Amino acid sequence: MALCTESEIVVRYAETDRMGVVYYANYLIWMEVGRTDYLAEIGFPYSSLERDGVLFPACNASIRFFRPSYYEDRLAVLTSIESLQSRKVMFGYRVMRGNELVVSGKTEHICVDFQMRVKKIPAKLFKALKASIDGTGKVGR
Amino acid sequence: MALCTESEIVVRYAETDRMGVVYYANYLIWMEVGRTDYLAEIGFPYSSLERDGVLFPACNASIRFFRPSYYEDRLAVLTSIESLQSRKVMFGYRVMRGNELVVSGKTEHICVDFQMRVKKIPAKLFKALKASIDGTGKVGR
Amino acid sequence: MALCTESEIVVRYAETDRMGVVYYANYLIWMEVGRTDYLAEIGFPYSSLERDGVLFPACNASIRFFRPSYYEDRLAVLTSIESLQSRKVMFGYRVMRGNELVVSGKTEHICVDFQMRVKKIPAKLFKALKASIDGTGKVGR
Amino acid sequence: MALCTESEIVVRYAETDRMGVVYYANYLIWMEVGRTDYLAEIGFPYSSLERDGVLFPACNASIRFFRPSYYEDRLAVLTSIESLQSRKVMFGYRVMRGNELVVSGKTEHICVDFQMRVKKIPAKLFKALKASIDGTGKVGR
Repeated sequence: MALCTESEIVVRYAETDRMGVVYYANYLIWMEVGRTDYLAEIGFPYSSLERDGVLFPACNASIRFFRPSYYEDRLAVLTSIESLQSRKVMFGYRVMRGNELVVSGKTEHICVDFQMRVKKIPAKLFKALKASIDGTGKVGR
Repeated sequence: MALCTESEIVVRYAETDRMGVVYYANYLIWMEVGRTDYLAEIGFPYSSLERDGVLFPACNASIRFFRPSYYEDRLAVLTSIESLQSRKVMFGYRVMRGNELVVSGKTEHICVDFQMRVKKIPAKLFKALKASIDGTGKVGR
Repeated sequence: MALCTESEIVVRYAETDRMGVVYYANYLIWMEVGRTDYLAEIGFPYSSLERDGVLFPACNASIRFFRPSYYEDRLAVLTSIESLQSRKVMFGYRVMRGNELVVSGKTEHICVDFQMRVKKIPAKLFKALKASIDGTGKVGR
Repeated sequence: MALCTESEIVVRYAETDRMGVVYYANYLIWMEVGRTDYLAEIGFPYSSLERDGVLFPACNASIRFFRPSYYEDRLAVLTSIESLQSRKVMFGYRVMRGNELVVSGKTEHICVDFQMRVKKIPAKLFKALKASIDGTGKVGR
């Protein structure tokens, strides 16, 4: 089974706006939290990837907002991989409050080096990403 | 000609991340700045709309990232309306650095009241939005 | 013994800046996380206080920055009460990475109603705050 | 006369919180905008200082909150230098809405190199900072 990580978010006051709900840009931040946890889970913390010159800036993002979320809500960000290519990876996310879908989204990332030149995803990382999709990866904590 | 407003953004240090470029969620904030300017331009400042119980939370957003932007960059957010329905409006944005396209995006908003119930866009506002698309609105400052 | 709550923070990419470290304003956000946990701990979640018209906007803040913190750092925000008056409360914070002090700070808050008029801290809340300082409160989880 | 720069801020929706006012951490961001403008005004844009390995992380900050500010408010951040030492500089700020004082604050910054080692403020920059305080600098735009 494909890996799906779960990251807990407790909504901060700073993340609300004067409509009384979470400001929409914060969901992109929480998706980043989901990605960070996913990569750590398969053994490649993003901070160590960057140290080795493997960067994944976003080239595309899309978000659907289904319900508002509120201060002190406990949310779960479910993260999985939607597609994987030699130079690109697309993550998919669902932000849940219990059984309610709050937001869904996708972000596509391209692999670049320190000079922002596109490059292939390094073989070891690619293999781990592939294994996490195929369900052959080490997925238990 | 359809209205297209231009909002100036000077990139703040706070908006950068450790990759040395603007963090991706900030573009959604700048699109909000573009929307605010567009609505003020056609005579309906969003703060006064809200006072009257006319809210426009986002229900969809999509962004394409073409180039990074940097601290102290002077950018222009070009905002126009992509489509208009009785209860929904979709804004389109291009974030430019001179002639370079940095980011493009769309956000769709649904008209709701204080209780977050969907409602029709009020007639006067609808007319002004329509006129701004048709190019019959008062568009000069 | 006076209550001191501990809140875990994992540094987000969004919270870093191009210097490669956490941007300084984020510490005020984490102090808010610490306050939220402190108030929940003594049985007065801030969201429910607000529902009852008991608001605590900040009137003063001070921060000392001792060391930088970095992406993916696991930090602890230690929160306690520095002083308590009939209308004001001052929280103290230490942000720690293991045994290292990263940042210390204080924020003072004044009790107001929905119309931002200063008022006395309600008796039950005042008692709970007092008990948490005196160490007579229910402090174990 | 000592230099005092004025930076215009238009409050963004993103900067408000569910209390309906600007979230307190944003004032530190606007102070950074004020600092950026001050340094540019005396001919040393902070982005070019950084390129030369002259960094000014904050080591202290204090803020007094006098009044709330609101979405779409036009504010002025007045920035000046409070004190200057061989390795440190302290900026002072007043955030104004017309003649009303919204917030005042100070931030102290220490000069470091890329390895975060404390160093002397480079002679040319020190001279320009000093001249801006003494009122002998080129201060007109």
